[in-house]
This record gives sequence, structure tokens and C-alpha cells, in this order.
Amino acid sequence: MRRRHPTDSEPPHRVLIVGGGFGGLYAARALRRAPVEVTLVDRANHHLFQPLLYQVSTGILTEGEIAPPLRGVLRGQRNARVLLAEVRGFDLDARSVAATGPDGEAVTLGYDSLIVAAGASHSYFGHDEWEALAPGLKTLEDARTVRSRILRAFELAELAGDEDERDAWLRFAVVGGGPTGIEVAGQIADLSRRTLRPDYWAVDTAGARIALVEAGPELLPGFPEPLRGPAARDLRRIGVDVRTGAAATGIDAEGVDLAGGDRLPARTVIWAAGVAPSPLAGLLAAASGAGLDRGGRLEVEGDLTLPGHPEVLAVGDMVALDGVPGVAPAAMQQGRHAARTVRARVKDRPAPGAFRYRDKGSIAVIGHNRAVGTAFGVRFGGLVGLAIWAVVHVAYLVGWGSRAITVGRWLWTLLARDRAERVIAPPPAALADARP
Amino acid sequence: MRRRHPTDSEPPHRVLIVGGGFGGLYAARALRRAPVEVTLVDRANHHLFQPLLYQVSTGILTEGEIAPPLRGVLRGQRNARVLLAEVRGFDLDARSVAATGPDGEAVTLGYDSLIVAAGASHSYFGHDEWEALAPGLKTLEDARTVRSRILRAFELAELAGDEDERDAWLRFAVVGGGPTGIEVAGQIADLSRRTLRPDYWAVDTAGARIALVEAGPELLPGFPEPLRGPAARDLRRIGVDVRTGAAATGIDAEGVDLAGGDRLPARTVIWAAGVAPSPLAGLLAAASGAGLDRGGRLEVEGDLTLPGHPEVLAVGDMVALDGVPGVAPAAMQQGRHAARTVRARVKDRPAPGAFRYRDKGSIAVIGHNRAVGTAFGVRFGGLVGLAIWAVVHVAYLVGWGSRAITVGRWLWTLLARDRAERVIAPPPAALADARP
Repeated sequence: MRRRHPTDSEPPHRVLIVGGGFGGLYAARALRRAPVEVTLVDRANHHLFQPLLYQVSTGILTEGEIAPPLRGVLRGQRNARVLLAEVRGFDLDARSVAATGPDGEAVTLGYDSLIVAAGASHSYFGHDEWEALAPGLKTLEDARTVRSRILRAFELAELAGDEDERDAWLRFAVVGGGPTGIEVAGQIADLSRRTLRPDYWAVDTAGARIALVEAGPELLPGFPEPLRGPAARDLRRIGVDVRTGAAATGIDAEGVDLAGGDRLPARTVIWAAGVAPSPLAGLLAAASGAGLDRGGRLEVEGDLTLPGHPEVLAVGDMVALDGVPGVAPAAMQQGRHAARTVRARVKDRPAPGAFRYRDKGSIAVIGHNRAVGTAFGVRFGGLVGLAIWAVVHVAYLVGWGSRAITVGRWLWTLLARDRAERVIAPPPAALADARP
Repeated sequence: MRRRHPTDSEPPHRVLIVGGGFGGLYAARALRRAPVEVTLVDRANHHLFQPLLYQVSTGILTEGEIAPPLRGVLRGQRNARVLLAEVRGFDLDARSVAATGPDGEAVTLGYDSLIVAAGASHSYFGHDEWEALAPGLKTLEDARTVRSRILRAFELAELAGDEDERDAWLRFAVVGGGPTGIEVAGQIADLSRRTLRPDYWAVDTAGARIALVEAGPELLPGFPEPLRGPAARDLRRIGVDVRTGAAATGIDAEGVDLAGGDRLPARTVIWAAGVAPSPLAGLLAAASGAGLDRGGRLEVEGDLTLPGHPEVLAVGDMVALDGVPGVAPAAMQQGRHAARTVRARVKDRPAPGAFRYRDKGSIAVIGHNRAVGTAFGVRFGGLVGLAIWAVVHVAYLVGWGSRAITVGRWLWTLLARDRAERVIAPPPAALADARP
């Protein structure tokens, strides 16, 4: 237990941060030496290192390795506390936030400065009925569901009474050709060709057919142009059926309908396509009069404040800013910028002004031994790409314990061709019912 | 994929093993050089190293570390295959077993020899309504639920509006003074005194009160007498309130009623008391005319066969045999004995006769730095006990990868005073509703 140490007679400036993702966490850390009292509130008790979530969904890493408790991460920061509660509403005039605790109890949190970093979840473009058929990949629960679906499909293929049934269970489709879609498709290919093959009798798992469906004309929309071709080529080389210019128009238990009338049979479908900002974006817009863009993201000022509310800032995937992509480094940079703005405010110094995104590069992993990326304008690929990817991602992981174990897991996956986490979780009743 | 290699013109002797716990897995492995075709069927895709399940429930180990996939474990055994299905019934005359696959498909499995090792789950002594209030500790899902409940209670204490509410969330009760109950109670004490303390602001987690409730006159019933006193003494030393001779007569959201009228306030209750054999024990009894003991366990012949059915054997926790406790080593020994009986049958040699249990010792861990146990009649305790415990348990873990990582986790827990897995999983709707 750590009690606050009163530094002077004045009550300290209260900074409330909503969300413990990259934006919120980097804001909190950037305030560690400021004369403020930071409260970080999140509905989960953990940070989530989303760029590695696909590795939990394919059995490489454990939940704890990419999801350290927020309390643990901020343990050494004397001016920061953490609360487990879900934010439900804002009263910008009263400068207070309404939330509910895990047991439903009402919690009211006052603030002097507010940083909202509530992120995004997946969107099914108005087809919420697809969710039970094609789970997305935004939370740890999602990753467990996806992992269980993939491994379960191979078990069902092994049990199948005839060739047709067996083949049906060996068809996978991943919808969405961004980094997550590419990485998941590559990992399913890797699982079927390398990891699982020696474990089955009736089924040759290497016969699995994995399709990657992207509505746009090329994979990796938003990535630098020279990466898109190599990504598709590398995926095809490991046996992934890459379909670009193919929007999903329907999903059912047996497959995916594509725009133009094509039908893709697949009993296991994974959703890596749409992203929708947290509903808190809409609440903030209504409370402040700020606009929302076509995707529902909050339109903030150039310095990340809400119009007319210099004490309220919003950062990360829930925010619309020209030229800023919805990636982890952008959220980190915005979180730090928001903290700088708050520090200036507390010390009555000039504000740092408009946020500017610095693009340090992009990178995506394909299968077990290659990656494509750019850094500072230089393009790279193959095993070199994978090594750069590994160094960058390990560097951003929280805590040296996680880093060491994560590297160990990667070596294990690469050398022993095995996966550490292959438990099939029992499906929630709702999902079990969705399949006829 | 591995196809069977026909060894001669005769079809091989088919051994069907139901259950991939210690009994079934050790039976399968003991048949690795026998001229038989082994099929191991389980409703989960993994073995479960139950003696370490309490470490998953308290954040030390991950699921994969104690639950390797059965396919992986038996990968190197050419005569063994694995099926994911749940057994529903036996036709002993037709020598076939009815099962259902994970998608509900009917599977019929024929056999020449049958070994049933379906284990046990927890029993609430007729009070099934206690399950939602006091989760047990038999499956990985149970461990996730228990871990989430424990960590959630500290979060709710931190959120609490007043002292009374805070204290209510800091009261824990563990029902059942066997090894699991002792180990869980010790770990909650350790979490509250060591791991979580630096992470909270409003709450001193070391103020948590953990009660261990045992209906019998002493802890560790069934363990050698000289261990019982030290166990209670060591637990009290780390602050656990040990209540013996105290049967639970009622459980609600605020605590436990004890026989004699005492009331133990506790918002978090964990059940480590009753054990009930798999329902397959009853089905086998009905199919063969074998009896069931008072606890519902199957009464087998001394050689583990069913009366009148020398081709059907049952082993492990679902079986009643005088002088054989329901512990992992007993199940392993019975599994191996059943395999020897089958080998003798296949080769037309004399059967090995009656099963004899060899007690090599018992051991239980208390908190983070001591254990009590006996081995070959010698009693030990303290840190030496913990070291012996660690060596024995690591030796029985499957795979050197798991062993190395598990030892790493233990050192991490001991030295860094941290836990690797602290994710609070969202509660299933049914459990969330159980609390008013």
C-alpha cells in the first residue's frame, strides 16, 4: 500500500486517464515526474500489447506475456494509481466521469485534466450476426476464441467420417488484409504445415487451405507501397490463397460470400477487417459538440484537445487526425503529447501546440521465418525482416521478465516447431449454438 | 500425418483408453512397445497436471505449462492415436463405446481391450447451488475462474467506498483441508502479503484474512499423521486462520456457515472439499453389474478388471480400492498395471494379478517457501521440503521445454515476488448474476 505524500498545502492537479492501452499508458508514464496525481481507469486489469495478440491466438505466447497488470506496470510510479472500472459517461461542466466497478458499483471520478484513450474494437460493418461465426481479434478473450476455433477445426477434421467432411474442416478464411490478417493467415499456414503435422493420424494437416480476403486492390492498405507486393508473394509462397479486391458480402457456417458472386468455402473464419472506435468517442462528441468522422472517430483539435475544452484530450484509435494511422506507435506518441500538454498547463507554460506524427516505419510478419517492413525509408524483408521485427517488439514489451520468456517462446516455436499453448477452451454456450 | 503400418495380416488388437489424465496417459505410454493399436479418447485436447493446477489459479504458471496437448505428448508413440470426443455410453457385449465429438457428431469406437480412466470432478455434497458462489479446482476453466475471483476481490477492495466494504472484500475462505485447500490458502496469503502489496493505494492487501475450513479434526486427512500438525502450524505462521472440525453447512455471497452455528464472513470462497467420480463410473456399473461404493466410485476386481469382463479395466479416481488414495501416483501406477494386464492378454501370458499400491510419499506446499511431506517414511519440511517438492514435480512434467519454463516461473515468483499471469477474465454471465 502506498499513501499519497502531500507535497504542499495545495491539493495536487488531478489527471484522469481513461484506458490503459498504448495511448493511456504512455501518457501516464510521461507524467511520472510532473506535480500531478494520475488516476488511470480501465475496465480490464491489464495493458494489452496488441501487436502480439495474434501470437496468443495461434498458441505461441501466453496471455500474461502480452498483458501485464496495469498495477504492475505503474508500480514504480509514485504519483499514479489504477482503478478497475468501466467509464459510462462524461460531465464536462462538472469535470467528472461516471464509471461502474466490476461488481456494478457506481464510481464518480473528478479531474482537473482528462485524457481519454479508449481505443477501438472490431466492426462488422453493420453485420453483427457475423461476430459469432467469424470472431475478431481485439481482446484476450478473442484470442482464446480464435485459438480454440483453429485447433478445434483440426480435431474435427481428424474425427470426420468422410473425405468431404474432412476437407470442409481444413478450409480457413481470414477476412482483412491488414497486418493482423496477414499475420494470422501466415500462422495458420505455419501451424498446419509445421507444428501440427506429426500429431495427426487420419488427416494430413498440411492439406489445409487458408484464404486471405481483402476488399481493397492490394494487401496492407496504408503501408508503404513497396511492401504490398512482397507481402502477397511471401504469403503465396507458404501456401496462402491471397484474394484481393474481394469484399466479404456474407458469412455463414460453411463459408464466405465475396462481392462479384464468388463463394469461399470455410468452416473457420476469422475477422480482421473493420475497426470501430470506442463508444466513448460518441459520448465525448455529444458532451462537447465535437464532430465525428465517417468511421465514428472523434474530431479533435490539432493539439488533441476537445473544441472549447482545453482540459480534455483524446488520443489513439478513437481519434481522427489527418495522416495519422491507427497503429500502436501513433497512440504512444499521442499519449506522450497529451502528457506534455497537461504538464504545460499545470506549470502555466506555453502548450506544445499541434501533434505531429513521426512515422518510424511499419512491419508485418509472414509465417515463421520472414517479415516485410520499412524503417526510416529503408525497405527490408525475409529473415532479416523477422530479426528487426523481433528486436523492435521485444524492446517495447513491458518488463525484462516478459522479454526473456517471450524470446524463449519464439526460439522454441522456431526451433522445436512446437507451440506452448494449445489448450482448446470450451466454447461459450452462445458460440456453440451459432453452428447448426 | 502418420498412417498405421500393417505389421502382419491379422488386424491389430485394439486398445481403447478413455481419459487422458494420469491413469489413461500412463496406460497409453506403457503400451508403446506392445503389438496393439491404442486409441486415447478425451473430451479435452490436453492432459492436465492437476498437482500444479493451484499455481494456475494463483497466477504462477500458465495453462499450457501444466496442460500439454495429448497429441503432443503421444506424438512419438507410433501405435497411439488421440481423438477429441466425450464418451457417453458403453456397450460391453458389442465391445463398443458411444461418444460425441466437439461439434455434437456421434462417434462409435470399437475395442478389444478397454481401459476407462475418467477421473473425478468436485462434489458439493448435494448443494449444487454452491458452485456459482464457491468455484472448485478441477479444470483449467476452474483455475481461471478462481484466479479471476481472487484478483477481482482486491480490485473491489481498492474501489470500496468505506472501511466495512473494503474489509468485506479482503476476507477469503477456502473450504477443504486437503493438499489443494492448503496450497490455495497459502498462495492467497502469499499474494496478499508479498506480491500485491506494492500495487495498491487505498488498500493494504496484507490485511487480507484467509480462513481454511476443514470438517475433520485435522488438516491433510489421509496424509501421514506427523505431517498434519506442521501443516497447520506453518499455515498459521503465514497468517491463515485454520479452522478444523468445522464443516460448511451453508454458503452465500457474504460468507460461510459452519456446523455449530459459527459464521465466517468471506466474499470470496473457494471449494476444495468434495470429490465425485466421473458419471462414467455409474454407467460402467450399470453395464457390468459391478457395484459402486458410498462415494459413487466403481468397485473393480483386485486386478482392476470389471467383474465378468476381463477385457475391461478401470483405473484412477473413479475406482474404489481399499488402501488406495485418490492421488496422481496411484492413478499412474494403476494405469501402468492395466497396460501390463492388456499386454499379458495380447501375448497369451499369465496376467500380472492384483494391483498393489506403492506409497512413495506425500507432499504439500505452504506459501512461497516451505512444504511438508514424507518420502519413504522420512519426514521433512521447510525450504528443504520445498526443494524436494520442486524436483519431484518438475520430474513428472511432460517435456523439457515445460520443465525449463516452469522452473523459470518458480524462480521469478520467489525472487521477483511477482506473478506472471494476472489477467482477470471477464466472468461468465451466469457467475456475474449469482452475486446480488
